[in-house]
Amino acid sequence: VRPKGSPPADENRLIQLLQRRSPFESSILIKGIGDDTAVIRPKRTDEFWLITTDMLVENVDFRREWYTPRQLGRKSIAVNLSDLAAMGGRPRFYTVSLAVPRGISERWMLEFHEGLAERGKPAGAHLIGGDLSRSGKHIAISISALGESLNRKVIYRSGGKAGDLVYVTGRLGRSAAGLHLLQNGRRRAGSRFQKMALQAHRDPEPRCAAGLWLAQSGLAHSMMDISDGLSMDLPRLCAASRVGAEVWVSSLPVFRESAMWGCNPVELALHGGEDYELLFTVPSSKRSRLEQNYPDSLPPVTQIGKLSADAGRVWMIRPDQTRFPLPPRGYDHFAQECARELG
Amino acid sequence: VRPKGSPPADENRLIQLLQRRSPFESSILIKGIGDDTAVIRPKRTDEFWLITTDMLVENVDFRREWYTPRQLGRKSIAVNLSDLAAMGGRPRFYTVSLAVPRGISERWMLEFHEGLAERGKPAGAHLIGGDLSRSGKHIAISISALGESLNRKVIYRSGGKAGDLVYVTGRLGRSAAGLHLLQNGRRRAGSRFQKMALQAHRDPEPRCAAGLWLAQSGLAHSMMDISDGLSMDLPRLCAASRVGAEVWVSSLPVFRESAMWGCNPVELALHGGEDYELLFTVPSSKRSRLEQNYPDSLPPVTQIGKLSADAGRVWMIRPDQTRFPLPPRGYDHFAQECARELG
Repeated sequence: VRPKGSPPADENRLIQLLQRRSPFESSILIKGIGDDTAVIRPKRTDEFWLITTDMLVENVDFRREWYTPRQLGRKSIAVNLSDLAAMGGRPRFYTVSLAVPRGISERWMLEFHEGLAERGKPAGAHLIGGDLSRSGKHIAISISALGESLNRKVIYRSGGKAGDLVYVTGRLGRSAAGLHLLQNGRRRAGSRFQKMALQAHRDPEPRCAAGLWLAQSGLAHSMMDISDGLSMDLPRLCAASRVGAEVWVSSLPVFRESAMWGCNPVELALHGGEDYELLFTVPSSKRSRLEQNYPDSLPPVTQIGKLSADAGRVWMIRPDQTRFPLPPRGYDHFAQECARELG
Repeated sequence: VRPKGSPPADENRLIQLLQRRSPFESSILIKGIGDDTAVIRPKRTDEFWLITTDMLVENVDFRREWYTPRQLGRKSIAVNLSDLAAMGGRPRFYTVSLAVPRGISERWMLEFHEGLAERGKPAGAHLIGGDLSRSGKHIAISISALGESLNRKVIYRSGGKAGDLVYVTGRLGRSAAGLHLLQNGRRRAGSRFQKMALQAHRDPEPRCAAGLWLAQSGLAHSMMDISDGLSMDLPRLCAASRVGAEVWVSSLPVFRESAMWGCNPVELALHGGEDYELLFTVPSSKRSRLEQNYPDSLPPVTQIGKLSADAGRVWMIRPDQTRFPLPPRGYDHFAQECARELG
């Protein structure tokens, strides 16, 4: 049943509306929305182009009632911008595939696209194509984003070496604390900290500027974003770099305030997903350069441990120096599906 | 319930398997599957890059029981290759977002990816990234494909002029005839013609070589692919070119044999979707060059009408020269959702 007042959306009309709202012009964009493909013309440089894609499925990755369409748009693009940030890239373009069930109005779709633009444009990313379709019952969103390197400086997961220092941006576990609040029926913040948690979950801020700085400075030798939780993602970085790691529990920049709502802040920092912070490594010889030069305007970075030669092993170090292996309990869609699936 | 013998798929493991199966190397591909983004390095030329995306949703765009996973993979990438073909582009790379419910085995996913590669590789397109996730109940597939121009020759929808001749490749309505068979429970062909129809629907062949030839020859001045039916797509080309068109009913290359199964071949040619043939226009001054030079090895092309100065009007011309406006009844996901939705 279509809500009253929402006319049936016409695909051609929607595309025209979106075209008119995205009158972006760039010397490298030849053709945006409205043809069979978008057309770009990379400049005659040796820059790299970065391509990433992510899908969000209703009732698996989000619940519709937890988000305004605008928030959902902002988050959908943020997730992709975070991947570009994790390579040190500059966002440039994106395409959106959106499948919606009946009952989703044209207004909903336009607000969703406004959310995309709100997050995308300031980061430098512009919509250049997409696909609108019906779905049976649930919303599915798939975005592909393209970024460009600057001075060919791209940071891979694989650049870590034993002895490198391991850092993260921001705080870990805020998004999972926000999810905890939502799952317990709290959609409006009752305090400043609840607001921080809800915002981290519903409207994460991709670390584009930090990623770019870390790449341009030459200080980060490996980097990725934390989307599935530190316990899932750090082992991925270690595997790509063929090293192990030690993480100091007491150094984790946890979201302490979540304890007020019955959460374990350390558990959320280790296993909570969707923080979209950056995880990166810096050779110890460059530590002081990082500490002296890292701009105050960017989200703070915290050293949480170091890489080891013990390939594939990730150890947690307690304050008393005892250690335990970090069990991967983050959000792997397949292996860990029971852990956090919202269905 | 997971089918017996299918172990729970692990995302990391699947990605590793896919990496090993796609050991593609190219001087412009710096990093494929396995990092936050793929990295490409366009050569120092002025070529254009083409980007397209399409989403297929179970029970809207396809029924699972009508396809082997391999066929579904082949069709999913074919739809995107068709968009690149429609611009005259050369396919290069693609990413896949795949959301699957429980009950879909790792084997299913691997076979799906094999289908992608079967259609992608011969066309020059290689998998460079993706996202695997759970869905609630239905499969959702979103593919983004990147192509490259050759000698900067890209054909847009907007290049048509009044007086240009309108052509299509192949035959129209075969795919809709195949859908008709499937909807009537016929999944295995009982005759050569049923096989043609089922194949057109389940395993469409993107017209990459024809699109490239038409662009390189300089003969096609506007082009698009027919994915939603001629009655939806020709008006789109006309709108982009700010012209009208006349289509001669008797010239349509219909799939006559569908009449044996109770279909109206002309109706299917006009309004059936998913043919993935090319629709293009050629100035009348170039007609003889097209007729003399178009290679026999490519799917035959047929003139079906011409563009007119009557902007926005698409007329059907009967053999007795009477005319009627072409009503758009193809597959618009939103305006025409009842017409062909499979739900």
